[in-house]
Amino acid sequence: MTRQEIPYKIYLTESEMPQYWYNLRADMKNKPAPLLNPGTHQPMTAEELSGVFCEELVQQELDNDTREYPIPQEILDFYKMYRPSPLVRAYCLEKKLKTPAKIYYKFEGNNTSGSHKLNSAIAQAYYAKKQGLKGVTTETGAGQWGTALSMACAYFELDCKVYMVKVSYEQKPFRREVMRVYGASVTPSPSMTTQVGRKILEEHPGTTGSLGCAISEAVETAVGNPGYRYVLGSVLNQVLLHQSVIGMETKIAMDKYDIHPDIIIGCAGGGSNLGGLIAPFMGEKLRGEADYRFIAVEPASCPSLTRGVFAYDFADTGMVCPLAKMYTLGSDFIPAPNHAGGLRYHGMSPILSQLYDDGMMEAVSVPQTRVFEAAETFARVEGILPAPESSHAICAAIDEAVRCRETGEEKTILFGLTGTGYFDLVAYEKFHDGKMDDYVPTDEELASFRARLPRI
Amino acid sequence: MTRQEIPYKIYLTESEMPQYWYNLRADMKNKPAPLLNPGTHQPMTAEELSGVFCEELVQQELDNDTREYPIPQEILDFYKMYRPSPLVRAYCLEKKLKTPAKIYYKFEGNNTSGSHKLNSAIAQAYYAKKQGLKGVTTETGAGQWGTALSMACAYFELDCKVYMVKVSYEQKPFRREVMRVYGASVTPSPSMTTQVGRKILEEHPGTTGSLGCAISEAVETAVGNPGYRYVLGSVLNQVLLHQSVIGMETKIAMDKYDIHPDIIIGCAGGGSNLGGLIAPFMGEKLRGEADYRFIAVEPASCPSLTRGVFAYDFADTGMVCPLAKMYTLGSDFIPAPNHAGGLRYHGMSPILSQLYDDGMMEAVSVPQTRVFEAAETFARVEGILPAPESSHAICAAIDEAVRCRETGEEKTILFGLTGTGYFDLVAYEKFHDGKMDDYVPTDEELASFRARLPRI
Repeated sequence: MTRQEIPYKIYLTESEMPQYWYNLRADMKNKPAPLLNPGTHQPMTAEELSGVFCEELVQQELDNDTREYPIPQEILDFYKMYRPSPLVRAYCLEKKLKTPAKIYYKFEGNNTSGSHKLNSAIAQAYYAKKQGLKGVTTETGAGQWGTALSMACAYFELDCKVYMVKVSYEQKPFRREVMRVYGASVTPSPSMTTQVGRKILEEHPGTTGSLGCAISEAVETAVGNPGYRYVLGSVLNQVLLHQSVIGMETKIAMDKYDIHPDIIIGCAGGGSNLGGLIAPFMGEKLRGEADYRFIAVEPASCPSLTRGVFAYDFADTGMVCPLAKMYTLGSDFIPAPNHAGGLRYHGMSPILSQLYDDGMMEAVSVPQTRVFEAAETFARVEGILPAPESSHAICAAIDEAVRCRETGEEKTILFGLTGTGYFDLVAYEKFHDGKMDDYVPTDEELASFRARLPRI
Repeated sequence: MTRQEIPYKIYLTESEMPQYWYNLRADMKNKPAPLLNPGTHQPMTAEELSGVFCEELVQQELDNDTREYPIPQEILDFYKMYRPSPLVRAYCLEKKLKTPAKIYYKFEGNNTSGSHKLNSAIAQAYYAKKQGLKGVTTETGAGQWGTALSMACAYFELDCKVYMVKVSYEQKPFRREVMRVYGASVTPSPSMTTQVGRKILEEHPGTTGSLGCAISEAVETAVGNPGYRYVLGSVLNQVLLHQSVIGMETKIAMDKYDIHPDIIIGCAGGGSNLGGLIAPFMGEKLRGEADYRFIAVEPASCPSLTRGVFAYDFADTGMVCPLAKMYTLGSDFIPAPNHAGGLRYHGMSPILSQLYDDGMMEAVSVPQTRVFEAAETFARVEGILPAPESSHAICAAIDEAVRCRETGEEKTILFGLTGTGYFDLVAYEKFHDGKMDDYVPTDEELASFRARLPRI
């Protein structure tokens, strides 16, 4: 088709919108390994999990078989507020790069949370409401997930308690303020509101907190308050299920205009965006119906797929959560403090880890100054100021497009633009002021974290 | 039609998009009064204006007759990046208010500049490029306009010099940083880079600047640098012409689904958004083809339409710009320092001023705590965090919808949601912390500013 026939931005009509989430696990020959009880090292049962998570979400978490989950009408109604997200042809970027490649991106940033996180937040809030709960607890680092969950809870009139890593709470007051607009209570972590928080503050009075600690506080608060459950924004199988809406929309739009992506690229922290974007395409590949190259892009400073090991590890530094088999750097790994670009998680979605181990997808890592260079190039020609996380995918997409320029191949490249960088301008400032460096952990450092992995 | 037939959000297809701007002046019986030379008090000639503005923009500024301006292809191409903007039915807000009214809003915030300002920025940058200029200068207060212009200049590879009111430069480093991403040079005003800046700094060493001073610095820099012109983001006739794209899209979408708005509401600072939104509807009213109620909403702390006078006044506090006949509070009026919500301009678009004086539209003013209450209500049910400016329109739309609940009338209300509030969270914080008050200028204060109006 010609440019005239394919719109610049493809928006599905309401009748074209996906009506179900696609459960990638149903088509995986090697299923993701089960979560293990941190005490007994036995697979977590539904009963054990339902003390922490909502019942229907536990069922989704454990279900390796059901291929399609109809999306509840209440969630479809909410999706209408900000979905479909546009699938955009990056004509201006192609021109700038002088590449024969065709570049498309699926843009998830056009909602107040600023990212794709809202897709799962609204689902998790819905099931909490349906179960008659009073509220949910969670942790947030930079604040994207906390914002998304606050919006979802406001919509369903659920209470929302967010533990925000103290350093972010203090340095990102605007994120905190958005959550307050949506009625969430935001507590800097570690705090005096939990046992684990008090213990950490006693041992490390000056600590600025960590995601691991915030998770532990959120879990403790959920378990200790009747009518509350804990929710998580990435890594889990249920989250990838909800995020499949990204890939479903993308696939419907591409099929409609007969576009076949050769390469599909996404940034990967916990894996929720990448897992969602690739889901239906990976399904075709698993079923032998089509072939695609999938590329996970991670920061060189936190390289779980490219330099981690595939092993059981704790999901949190507090080691209270179930063990997950995943590519990991070790649960006490923390990226260098100068690392500005999100994607700081030590592990990776068990589903994506299994697919990577099975050779179904590739992974690359990129240093952060290159990421910000790509971000700025993209912003200037395509208009959108991208989140640092998303810019990892931009960077890899540009690399592939430049390769096409060199070989003359007219490949079609699709990448996920997960969000906007409006709350990441401190990082952009560092980049402009030349205060950003590209520290990469040494092999020795990684080995020392690896040595502390649980022996299972 | 039923809800099933009208989409929740209406996006025009590419073939439905407006191909021309509509020049409202062509249908006005009483044309807006001409700009006057501040020295001679004679109407500004095209030659005089072209020292400051691009030639084609001067022509647009002075043209009261041409009804339709075809939008140049280069601008249509840029519009494709972020237009069409969605026309949204506010089902959730209606439900929350228990109103029989149907509420629609046209949302202009889904672009990195965060507002409708980009519609005119790209047009002004295009004509500057076409004229072979090196760059443009402008002023910015809160930073919305400066951001929009930076994006437009990056796209056309034009230099962009922004004078940013010093207090905003210091308090809004993120806005400044976005402009840097797009390659603009941002100078805090007053600065040592201009004569007028040096003079002001000498007289008031500790000043934090004002929009009027920044305008004067930007104009001086444009006039003193070969290959540069000055551009402005509101008030001018040319800006309303470009912004008519908002109303054109809205009208096409509403006509497609046979929706007739009874009331059309927009916030009004300089008037660019309101003038753009109402343009084609007002055209119908002026030609006697249809009737609508138009409501301009302004802050009670800066009430140019509701408490100002219709008179010739300076556009800037430095009194170097042409005189415009408009509703004004006096060019040295500055709203109370606690005023958080934008819309701080002392005057109003000459086009809108004339229409208001002719009884073609209404105006109301609202106190700022009510504006933020409306903003929060809207954010929680409709998802989008609105800009304080836009929230003035939300506030008035809610008032009309509540009136419908009381009378049982099923009116159709349309309002302009001009932008997002991601860079206005300091104001939201003040609101949440109870530190916002509703200072309104007294009659005596307004009279004292009025007494200093130029006598023409």
